[in-house]
Amino acid sequence: MSDKAFDSIRAIRWVDDHLQLLDQRLLPNEEIFLDIYSAREAQDAIRNMAVRGAPAIGITVAYGAVLSVQYQFEQNPQNWHEAWTEDLQRLGDARPTAVNAVWAVKQMQKVAGEIGNESPVAALLQAARAMHQNDVEGNYRMGELGQALLHKNSSVITHCNTGALATGGYGTALGVIRAAAEQGKIEEVLADETRPWLQGSRLTAWELEKEGIPSRLIADSAAASLMRQGKADCAIVGADRIAANGDVANKIGTYSLAVSAKAHSIPFYVAAPVSTIDMVTARGDDIKIEIRAEQELLQVGERRIAAPGARAYNPVFDVTPAELIDAIITDKGIVNNPNTEKIRKLMSDV
Amino acid sequence: MSDKAFDSIRAIRWVDDHLQLLDQRLLPNEEIFLDIYSAREAQDAIRNMAVRGAPAIGITVAYGAVLSVQYQFEQNPQNWHEAWTEDLQRLGDARPTAVNAVWAVKQMQKVAGEIGNESPVAALLQAARAMHQNDVEGNYRMGELGQALLHKNSSVITHCNTGALATGGYGTALGVIRAAAEQGKIEEVLADETRPWLQGSRLTAWELEKEGIPSRLIADSAAASLMRQGKADCAIVGADRIAANGDVANKIGTYSLAVSAKAHSIPFYVAAPVSTIDMVTARGDDIKIEIRAEQELLQVGERRIAAPGARAYNPVFDVTPAELIDAIITDKGIVNNPNTEKIRKLMSDV
Repeated sequence: MSDKAFDSIRAIRWVDDHLQLLDQRLLPNEEIFLDIYSAREAQDAIRNMAVRGAPAIGITVAYGAVLSVQYQFEQNPQNWHEAWTEDLQRLGDARPTAVNAVWAVKQMQKVAGEIGNESPVAALLQAARAMHQNDVEGNYRMGELGQALLHKNSSVITHCNTGALATGGYGTALGVIRAAAEQGKIEEVLADETRPWLQGSRLTAWELEKEGIPSRLIADSAAASLMRQGKADCAIVGADRIAANGDVANKIGTYSLAVSAKAHSIPFYVAAPVSTIDMVTARGDDIKIEIRAEQELLQVGERRIAAPGARAYNPVFDVTPAELIDAIITDKGIVNNPNTEKIRKLMSDV
Repeated sequence: MSDKAFDSIRAIRWVDDHLQLLDQRLLPNEEIFLDIYSAREAQDAIRNMAVRGAPAIGITVAYGAVLSVQYQFEQNPQNWHEAWTEDLQRLGDARPTAVNAVWAVKQMQKVAGEIGNESPVAALLQAARAMHQNDVEGNYRMGELGQALLHKNSSVITHCNTGALATGGYGTALGVIRAAAEQGKIEEVLADETRPWLQGSRLTAWELEKEGIPSRLIADSAAASLMRQGKADCAIVGADRIAANGDVANKIGTYSLAVSAKAHSIPFYVAAPVSTIDMVTARGDDIKIEIRAEQELLQVGERRIAAPGARAYNPVFDVTPAELIDAIITDKGIVNNPNTEKIRKLMSDV
């Protein structure tokens, strides 16, 4: 598919008649693929974060739609569409913040609506595979475009995991970092550990280590201080949903990083495919932010780390206003200083 | 000693002939006091963080000086002073950033220099006890002064642990919160979990839970987003060292919180006794910042959380410039918008 140097990891794969997902809850300790045979299993995998990352969720929804149609079409070849649509809706609703799930639902509905006499199974599988492949190719394109923004010897801060694991392959923000590393531009990646789920420590460090890109983990709260000390040249993050005005919902802590970057005049970049842009949502504050279980903060694995009786508040995404973002790097081009007009222009060209 | 409502916790105590320290590495799971019989054991307890928090470190150094003199005076009643001074120096150097250790060393040296024919053991024990008691009384005073800055129904963000555990008792920033709670002013404390050592989850939540002050833990990186949503009325933190110009070295993440508070026009307060003010250090950037072991970020307890081979960078303090601080609350008065001149004035009045 590609001659990219940094492209060995594939966390989502379709094998014969079913989906396989690299279980991201078990990484980095175990590399185990889950066999997913039904839409319900796909929905559970999204909800319990066996698969996470907005583009990866979108692709999983698409393959989940295939799993559903395999079953529903066999059950009722004449009237599979209604039950399939219900399955699809549940898949799209498994987690609220990432828009890629909604986007994948729409794409699959569109394909289903255009099916004539052919098998819906084959048509939807073809569409899901194409979506997966397009995601990877879009990531390569973002990498190419985005790496041009980075200087030689860059020390780059990133947050959460936006790599091969979070996407169809290669990655969004981490794809840009990979592409910059291919150009010899990366001195070091400073990877936020990303509490509470530790995507940075468990997943980003795992990907970077596999590929020999120099990196160190930092406490999320250390980023501002490192910026003040001149130890970071830019920050690059992904996105779970981009509103029509360029506001970005992403992993909790993204906003804090953007505020710090602005305070230190350090470029703050967001890398995300256009499938992450939600033209129906005018502003970031209209995006539903998922609040997850307190346990994610109070425990590490099965081990409780917080005092007995302690409570927690665990919003897992936040909203970064467009004015804090220097550029949104998409698979269709870079939008500098994003705003409603520029986003509309980008999307009308798509 | 006091009729304060919230004053049950004492983590440092002198019992008969030795020091007892509540082992803060084991909290909140186990409440175990370490018996400390020598200066070397006291030094180890500081270094390995069985005791932590700038004022608590200072008091431990003072009691450590007593443990040393008990031994050295018995060994060599005529010439104990030299060996004692060496012990004292090692105690003061156990951790570099908190100035209270240095301050305690100076105080004990002063007392030792003034000893006539009396026993140095009794004189130094009396001095250490007085230092301990003064710390607690200073905390009450800071609480009184500081609570006046808070409004009714305050939602307060705090970072790290600055309570009874970090001090002789009652606390600095958490003392202000306690005093405000006594006045019915606290709607909720939003406690940063405080990576990597989780002082918030393990210690602050433990103290607040014990005393029924409403609180929730948050990811450190969530504070900025909660400020943006209007969910925080002010932020209060402690200090490990305050430079002569009002710059503050404190737990990593303090600076990030201060930058966020400024960006949202939310008052940012520092509470610390004048023993934390280091008039010899002109600016915050002259303060030595301790870099601790990578393992603190890569592991939780004995369990590795990061990918195999991953590295980390673990500065455990940062510097917040005075211009981001709305007020420094000390036991000798409040300094609004701190600067060199105001700090000099405060210290000349001490």
